[in-house]
Amino acid sequence: MIAATPPPPYYAVIFTSLRTTTDDGYDEMAEKMEMLAAQQPGFLGMESARSETGITVSYWSDVQSIVSWKNEAEHLVAQGLGREKWYQGYTTRICLVERDYSFVAPTLPK
Amino acid sequence: MIAATPPPPYYAVIFTSLRTTTDDGYDEMAEKMEMLAAQQPGFLGMESARSETGITVSYWSDVQSIVSWKNEAEHLVAQGLGREKWYQGYTTRICLVERDYSFVAPTLPK
Repeated sequence: MIAATPPPPYYAVIFTSLRTTTDDGYDEMAEKMEMLAAQQPGFLGMESARSETGITVSYWSDVQSIVSWKNEAEHLVAQGLGREKWYQGYTTRICLVERDYSFVAPTLPK
Repeated sequence: MIAATPPPPYYAVIFTSLRTTTDDGYDEMAEKMEMLAAQQPGFLGMESARSETGITVSYWSDVQSIVSWKNEAEHLVAQGLGREKWYQGYTTRICLVERDYSFVAPTLPK
């Protein structure tokens, strides 16, 4: 899914990760966190893909919403488990989205 | 791969896409564009993953470098072919990375 975000400016959190070979509840937790994030104030949308590298981008109205989500109680537990068993490494980047543009293929024959 | 970017501020271009079912040279072109991007002034790194959705994030030192890459001749051809046959839709977001932080799992047993 491509997130349907409002016109800029808004914020993006780019979470890029390399997984360990340990599953042990990872998929359930990822799904739970995705649902929980979507209930937070300021949440605008989320996009996710995984090959060798995993990339999850979440979109937020402002920095305070990102800080609040980072410190949400169940999310803190998930972050701890992530560092303990699910991730070899990750980088989180907090970004101000200044401009965006989209393309949608025409559905009518040319 | 997680891109080894310098300390912020720097720029990120988040390219989120849905593919058509047409391959027809897509992989070769993606690889060619990745190599060509890496040769551009201001290029800092790139991360890519694809599930149902594809996400490619490229990192740049400044906006002018992003504009120059967007208008690079071979890249313009690739963008045209992308709209013509490879993508159902995409969104490109130009972002100022304000903060980042990383985690690397310890390799020693606890």
